[in-house]
Amino acid sequence: MLGNCIKNVRTAVPLVHNITNYVTVNDVANILLACGGSPIMSDEPEDVEDITSICGGLNINIGTLNQRSIEGMFRAGKKANELGHILLLDPVGAGASALRTGTAVKLMDELKFDAVRGNISEIKTLALGSGTTQGVDADVADAVTEENLEEAVAFAKDFAKKAGCIAAITGAIDLVSDGESCYVIRNGRAEMGKITGTGCQLSGIMTAFLVANPKEKLQAAAAAVCAMGLAGELAWARMQDGDGNSAYRSRIIDAIYNMDGDTLEKGAKYEVR
Amino acid sequence: MLGNCIKNVRTAVPLVHNITNYVTVNDVANILLACGGSPIMSDEPEDVEDITSICGGLNINIGTLNQRSIEGMFRAGKKANELGHILLLDPVGAGASALRTGTAVKLMDELKFDAVRGNISEIKTLALGSGTTQGVDADVADAVTEENLEEAVAFAKDFAKKAGCIAAITGAIDLVSDGESCYVIRNGRAEMGKITGTGCQLSGIMTAFLVANPKEKLQAAAAAVCAMGLAGELAWARMQDGDGNSAYRSRIIDAIYNMDGDTLEKGAKYEVR
Amino acid sequence: MLGNCIKNVRTAVPLVHNITNYVTVNDVANILLACGGSPIMSDEPEDVEDITSICGGLNINIGTLNQRSIEGMFRAGKKANELGHILLLDPVGAGASALRTGTAVKLMDELKFDAVRGNISEIKTLALGSGTTQGVDADVADAVTEENLEEAVAFAKDFAKKAGCIAAITGAIDLVSDGESCYVIRNGRAEMGKITGTGCQLSGIMTAFLVANPKEKLQAAAAAVCAMGLAGELAWARMQDGDGNSAYRSRIIDAIYNMDGDTLEKGAKYEVR
Repeated sequence: MLGNCIKNVRTAVPLVHNITNYVTVNDVANILLACGGSPIMSDEPEDVEDITSICGGLNINIGTLNQRSIEGMFRAGKKANELGHILLLDPVGAGASALRTGTAVKLMDELKFDAVRGNISEIKTLALGSGTTQGVDADVADAVTEENLEEAVAFAKDFAKKAGCIAAITGAIDLVSDGESCYVIRNGRAEMGKITGTGCQLSGIMTAFLVANPKEKLQAAAAAVCAMGLAGELAWARMQDGDGNSAYRSRIIDAIYNMDGDTLEKGAKYEVR
Repeated sequence: MLGNCIKNVRTAVPLVHNITNYVTVNDVANILLACGGSPIMSDEPEDVEDITSICGGLNINIGTLNQRSIEGMFRAGKKANELGHILLLDPVGAGASALRTGTAVKLMDELKFDAVRGNISEIKTLALGSGTTQGVDADVADAVTEENLEEAVAFAKDFAKKAGCIAAITGAIDLVSDGESCYVIRNGRAEMGKITGTGCQLSGIMTAFLVANPKEKLQAAAAAVCAMGLAGELAWARMQDGDGNSAYRSRIIDAIYNMDGDTLEKGAKYEVR
Repeated sequence: MLGNCIKNVRTAVPLVHNITNYVTVNDVANILLACGGSPIMSDEPEDVEDITSICGGLNINIGTLNQRSIEGMFRAGKKANELGHILLLDPVGAGASALRTGTAVKLMDELKFDAVRGNISEIKTLALGSGTTQGVDADVADAVTEENLEEAVAFAKDFAKKAGCIAAITGAIDLVSDGESCYVIRNGRAEMGKITGTGCQLSGIMTAFLVANPKEKLQAAAAAVCAMGLAGELAWARMQDGDGNSAYRSRIIDAIYNMDGDTLEKGAKYEVR
């Protein structure tokens, strides 16, 4: 079933508007193309409403936010909501600065997201700060492990239910929940943490997966997480003597480019709780 | 003859000022170095006049325009015109938003460009909107094919003549016209569309080719288009099992790096109409 | 001894705040990860103080400066100074525009840097313009060669002493001085100049080396310069038929990723004057 999600992306070729950081933006664009989507970037407040109107989804990533791009995020997000487009938040660095935390929380409170993707400390920050997630018990560790998995799953479900969106919490073990059930995903490799932007890239393709699979959002989000992790595994298998994180980064995008539905279906490692 | 154009770039090492988008800027810089040029990036209005003054050409790309960089484009463009420098416009996304269309049209109306490079829908948007191209018949299809080639060539010539600059319209078939004659170029591969920024990269090297070949501008622009397409062909021939769009992107820049005049001369596929 | 410096980076995993240009920012992030550090990027004035507070060092690079990011540089730099964090300046393009020269000079005058890294013409611009370096004899050639090495070393020492920081002047021959002694380094390859951003990358890892080796700053800065040059040599040895500057760029980052202390110790080519 997860395999169909990437097939649908390749068929639909969803146009995804990205308001994202300038660190990893090129990789986000290339991995969106690799998975079968089509990227467009625009963060100027005067420009974003027109651009998001012609797209199917909007990926908001606060990685190198500034006052101008923050205004762009709100204007684009409101337009996307009006039009019923897919809307995803990647709260990069929420918790690390007042501006990031405040912006992420305000985005959660003023916009209706289909999905939020971040690491557990970013999602905890949202849980503690946002009015929409009031009452979420965020007393969970800062890394999801086999030992604390049960409480992490409970946290993911609780957050997703109260926020009214899919929560994708990524790390050594990934959790994707819609509030009712939770995919526990064990794809990926630790070395992916030595590349800048694998999280940003995942948020990009997750938006495309959601646009192309509107009736199966939980599955689509889980498929994107599995695809990214599986790409990390397949790319590692192609590493050659002397290769490092730069070759790895390129090979991961290539693995997404070459991934078909069957490969994803067979390679996805998950259980549903 | 086209082969000489890249030789001249390698001899002249033209310094090219780029006001370009943050998505593909690194690739634009590296491909400019690969072809023998030297890139410098600056978009702050207070900075651009000084920077463009020490360069030979200015490449204006509106891919991720904002109010500040738009001001930079006009200030730099006016200075480049004053100094008689090569000036190129890449109207990324003209037609997709009011700000992009309006900015591109205003740039055309207030500045004197040596060349404009875009896809046919972007160039049609300019044809319809700009006072300098009034009366251009833009009733041409949105993709140049063998079937509609004759009318597309007529459109390219008409646009170039009325705009008073070289029109480089790129796609499956590329057209480069100065208003009198038109190069019809059949280099390249469809897979280049799966990489972000091959168009931006072409605009970068085209600026360098124009600076280094000031007396043969039509030929220089056509040579840049052939070089980029040929690089796409040569890079594809080097693709290995498991490679995807990320490896392809890197191999294209490398193909430009290794391209000499003879390779370009022999590999260029064009006719002049 | 230099080999220990990279070992210490891998052990300490220093978090480095970068206010840097959007051309090479992705490479700076990936090479910081490759050497064992951890990068974070932020240039919004409202954000930078919080971000720099959680880091160990701040790398200020003026490559695509704008009025907003300039304000961010001063605010972040003052906070870094208050906290006693490592602070490095990369004055990209100082001398090429009034804004760049003025900004770099003002940064030197208002902040206390641990190190400044640039090419000789950039450092000469600082020597001539900054109050903190008054009286430095900048009558030195614009390229360091074996012929003018003695006067270049004298200039590096004089600049470092008067500026009260480490001066890292990079080019065909690299000089790293603390005002008392000067490392003369002969690692690297000319082809590194055909890649955009090897200087920016060096500034990034030098900041990490300084954070991880706070008691041996001169050695740490010299080790970073040797590591970058050695990576250029090792990467070149891995170049394959058809590779160009794009493959080279990736292989250099990979060489840093795979470099251990012994490799650096044995491969570093330097004398101390």
